[in-house]
Amino acid sequence: MGVAATVTGGPGGGSSLEALTALVGDDLQAVNAVIVSRMQSPVAMIPQLAGHVVAAGGKRLRPMLTLASAHLCGYRGRRHVGLAASVEFIHTATLLHDDVVDDSELRRGLASANAVWGNKASVLVGDFLFSRAFELMVEDGSLDVLRILSRASSVIAEGEVMQLMTANDTGTDQTAYLDVIRAKTAELFAAACEIGAVVADRPAADAAALQRYGSNFGMAFQLVDDVLDYSARQMTLGKTIGDDFREGKITLPVVLAFQRGDEDDRVFWRRTLEDLDQAPGDLDRAMELLKRHNALTDTMAMAREYGERAVAALSTLPPGAPRQIMGEVVDFCVERAF
Amino acid sequence: MGVAATVTGGPGGGSSLEALTALVGDDLQAVNAVIVSRMQSPVAMIPQLAGHVVAAGGKRLRPMLTLASAHLCGYRGRRHVGLAASVEFIHTATLLHDDVVDDSELRRGLASANAVWGNKASVLVGDFLFSRAFELMVEDGSLDVLRILSRASSVIAEGEVMQLMTANDTGTDQTAYLDVIRAKTAELFAAACEIGAVVADRPAADAAALQRYGSNFGMAFQLVDDVLDYSARQMTLGKTIGDDFREGKITLPVVLAFQRGDEDDRVFWRRTLEDLDQAPGDLDRAMELLKRHNALTDTMAMAREYGERAVAALSTLPPGAPRQIMGEVVDFCVERAF
Repeated sequence: MGVAATVTGGPGGGSSLEALTALVGDDLQAVNAVIVSRMQSPVAMIPQLAGHVVAAGGKRLRPMLTLASAHLCGYRGRRHVGLAASVEFIHTATLLHDDVVDDSELRRGLASANAVWGNKASVLVGDFLFSRAFELMVEDGSLDVLRILSRASSVIAEGEVMQLMTANDTGTDQTAYLDVIRAKTAELFAAACEIGAVVADRPAADAAALQRYGSNFGMAFQLVDDVLDYSARQMTLGKTIGDDFREGKITLPVVLAFQRGDEDDRVFWRRTLEDLDQAPGDLDRAMELLKRHNALTDTMAMAREYGERAVAALSTLPPGAPRQIMGEVVDFCVERAF
Repeated sequence: MGVAATVTGGPGGGSSLEALTALVGDDLQAVNAVIVSRMQSPVAMIPQLAGHVVAAGGKRLRPMLTLASAHLCGYRGRRHVGLAASVEFIHTATLLHDDVVDDSELRRGLASANAVWGNKASVLVGDFLFSRAFELMVEDGSLDVLRILSRASSVIAEGEVMQLMTANDTGTDQTAYLDVIRAKTAELFAAACEIGAVVADRPAADAAALQRYGSNFGMAFQLVDDVLDYSARQMTLGKTIGDDFREGKITLPVVLAFQRGDEDDRVFWRRTLEDLDQAPGDLDRAMELLKRHNALTDTMAMAREYGERAVAALSTLPPGAPRQIMGEVVDFCVERAF
């Protein structure tokens, strides 16, 4: 499950993300400047490795959510910039640690940081960025923000361990899978949005609404990401498909296809995803089974449901361009699968 | 360099550590209770793996330093208990991440957590404990403590990366080596002591004095630890020697012996520590070279010097049993090598 997936717009689909980028405007440049300046260290390997990940790190969706949430809440100060950088540092540290490979596992085809610098360097630079995130929060000085993001960090780690325990286990059910992505993906989306209300000193109800928006958006985002790994749409964007399959990752499409399949199907899933015994043609068969059992369309339906909940959560917040754009970006992220 | 080394007393040598344990008394039991209660998680693998490390985690020297420092500063509250647990969580997370093995490296003979549960689980549970440490600090509510420990965490990560860059490099000089241990070991000792003054609300000069005490103690502690890995004394305690040698770790004894050796010696060190090409008898030869060049005695002399600076740093602080015992525990830790 590549949580690193970039949010790139396909033909005609990029307008809402562009609108979000326009909304946060110069603030995003300021966040990027903080990121670059605060990943520096006299220890040369740290900015080298961190730069590799940060440069490849997609469109800064999470920090943009912090900026947009603060904007929506009418915030006019500068604190959201450092905190958005802090959110991105936590995300980057998570990516680095998520890519650490056990001896028993396959390496990805792509040159992840651990493939270039080794597992240990990835772990330690992740630790550095994680610590730096907390230093940024301390400089900001809000114990409420520190509470939200330290809790989110614990929950993310729990989610990653849960994912490890369900990895390659075709017996994983939908509830267990949703628990994993709620912890490992949705929690940081939720925290990123919530702190926007905190810096703006808005009432708890607004912080809670933004938390719900982020959490549901994160669920939708991860479900779409899981679908994209098996989607022909992904290929038209020039990306590889089947990474999750090759790694034996159990995502919702697989959970649904496994449960709905017959014994032959289950033998296939166990061989390919549990034993990682894969032959040419297996990915095609997997995609055929996912299609036959409506696994991708049903996962997308669930993603849409979470997306609708995210947009609905915004309803109690002040109307205007920020709210409008934050709603549209959810729709865009959900529909990018098509 | 096993920073996890337990501080066990040899025959007749344990009195000062026992005095420290007696000084902190019930508070240490309270710290242990917080550690056990806060490493719990609905995700079963987390307490299992964390328990494995925490149970094997030595004598809780760092949290005892927080407790003793608070005591020395006349503190009578309970905040030092949670913060001492936080310090131990950071230390444990560091150990877990320090044990992550690259494909290219040797595994240790002992069953470290990563050998039992895998690299990835060790990384993620380390992340959980690290996040939990920050949650404990947030509950405490002191931004000064958060500042000290978030900075310490960044510096530790930098030190670990520096160590990685000097690993297996016989060209490492004394300055580079001391920079590594100052960051990876001394920084947390220093922070553990400093926060004792912060909770007691003492003037900045007292916090600085305890910071110096901890930093110099940490340097002495690590140097002794490096000596013990090649020390016959270690064998009489029933421990293995030569772990650092087998892993190709460059510690100060090796730095000195390499610099003082002739070309034959250097060929030997390069083969065994850089190429990790080791044969039976090599450890004996290494120990013989360390002895011939006074590498262990000179490292010990340096450890004593740092130890003396640590004790001297206490001089401006209130006299009494806590100060006396904190001085003696340094001497004990230095002399445990004999």
